[in-house]
Amino acid sequence: MTSSRKLAFIGMGVMGAPMASHLVKAGHQVTVYNRTFEKAQAWAERHPGQQAARTPALAAADAEIVLLCVGNDADVREVISGRNGLLESLKPGSLIIDHTTASASLAKEMVECCDQKQIDFLDAPVSGGQQGAENGQLTIMVGGNNAAFVRGEPIMQCFAKAVTHMGPAGSGQLTKMVNQICIGGLVQALAEGLNFAAAAGLDQQKVIDVISLGAAGSWQMNNRHKTMIANEYEHGFAVDWMRKDLGICLEQARQINAQLPVTALVDQFYSEVQQLGGGRWDTSSLLRRLQAFSKPADNKN
Amino acid sequence: MTSSRKLAFIGMGVMGAPMASHLVKAGHQVTVYNRTFEKAQAWAERHPGQQAARTPALAAADAEIVLLCVGNDADVREVISGRNGLLESLKPGSLIIDHTTASASLAKEMVECCDQKQIDFLDAPVSGGQQGAENGQLTIMVGGNNAAFVRGEPIMQCFAKAVTHMGPAGSGQLTKMVNQICIGGLVQALAEGLNFAAAAGLDQQKVIDVISLGAAGSWQMNNRHKTMIANEYEHGFAVDWMRKDLGICLEQARQINAQLPVTALVDQFYSEVQQLGGGRWDTSSLLRRLQAFSKPADNKN
Repeated sequence: MTSSRKLAFIGMGVMGAPMASHLVKAGHQVTVYNRTFEKAQAWAERHPGQQAARTPALAAADAEIVLLCVGNDADVREVISGRNGLLESLKPGSLIIDHTTASASLAKEMVECCDQKQIDFLDAPVSGGQQGAENGQLTIMVGGNNAAFVRGEPIMQCFAKAVTHMGPAGSGQLTKMVNQICIGGLVQALAEGLNFAAAAGLDQQKVIDVISLGAAGSWQMNNRHKTMIANEYEHGFAVDWMRKDLGICLEQARQINAQLPVTALVDQFYSEVQQLGGGRWDTSSLLRRLQAFSKPADNKN
Repeated sequence: MTSSRKLAFIGMGVMGAPMASHLVKAGHQVTVYNRTFEKAQAWAERHPGQQAARTPALAAADAEIVLLCVGNDADVREVISGRNGLLESLKPGSLIIDHTTASASLAKEMVECCDQKQIDFLDAPVSGGQQGAENGQLTIMVGGNNAAFVRGEPIMQCFAKAVTHMGPAGSGQLTKMVNQICIGGLVQALAEGLNFAAAAGLDQQKVIDVISLGAAGSWQMNNRHKTMIANEYEHGFAVDWMRKDLGICLEQARQINAQLPVTALVDQFYSEVQQLGGGRWDTSSLLRRLQAFSKPADNKN
């Protein structure tokens, strides 16, 4: 256990709330803020001795390090440099660690405006999902200067299985983008395979048992095939959030001239899932989209 | 070891030759045939006591079971029912096991013409590649009647880590198609991720180290990232063969009305790799295609 520090945590969503709890468990003093105050209050009530604040500035008033995990670029900007934002109260020498999945250009922008107040900023998006946050087993990809990383790393270890310094400001976000790019086309290919198997009259489970140990195998195949075969899509990261992330990837790719043809297509498919009412379904619901275009008579689901 | 049987093996390519060797190692008597006779002869010279034959019919004259691993549908048809084909000499009660990756309709067609001579036929495509053939660690997906499977299974075990009966005639081929469908989009997504990482100035190896244990992880990521980063594409299944397989998948999908949008797109990308001169490169060369469309200045490769 590291020595106890005064921390603030902004954003009590399904990720932020359990991450903040791990900080308390590690012995730190945590003041939390959430846009809907009641959520912050409820968290504080579950953690005796910890506080909920009415604004980010109030949450950060005494903090050495502020962590945040909010929705998107605009939310991060608002929390940090908006009215009643962190920069109104944070002291020179403090550190902001942003766990939001956001753009790399936002990270650079935040570094600039924090710099003016001698405050450090790390972009530190996570993977591992809600379960990883709850178990304290997140993978964290960090961008920013080395001194800030060394200072922030023991704090992040409270809820991580791996914390890796990827490079200068924005590198954490860029790494998270690679992660999402690799997932998009992979899940679509898995969905095409399972949909084809059903249409061909094969036993889908038997097919997965045979092919999952070979060159077609993947984490997604191992961890999602059962719910996909059962046509259940309530078991992971939501399509609405995946679309936000893929939008960031596609915009970044435009800036650096990297082709993402399948990622762009899968993003369009996810927009169709949203149109089917599936914004809250998990990302494997690409299968349900395919079923909407397949001949029902040949489809066992 | 099963009791010694008289076998024939048709097709002494990079897969067939080592598969036939495993049969000899298991104590069976094997006569081999290859379109280019010298290859069959060379194999027989390396295996004292085994024979090379000048036609499929001659190879099969004394055989109880004939295995084949040739190029495509037309090759299988020619070897079995063409002039000097297996059906000219095989006795009633014998069994043909076809390890070629071919169409499901060919399997049904071969079952019909073998039936007329009271000969059994199994479609039994493999995965595991040249290395799996050499190590005797192939995964075999089998379609056909149950009695034929029970009879053929111990022979196939000579070069397999798993032999699974998937269902009636054609089911082995359909399962292999699902395997190739799952691989196509996955490899493209991995290529897009690695290309993006390079264009973004990230350390590609470091990115893979971080993301490979999570939801983006796959066999392809684990086994191909090093050669992809090194821009080497000589380490697996060739693009020319993948195009053949994807063509079979797309034709089958048309028959059963299953959408394969990303598989179809990846097939087109592989045709571009062929145009770049990469027909013999391995399937991960989708990365090289992407590099051809990326800004060189930002690309570390």
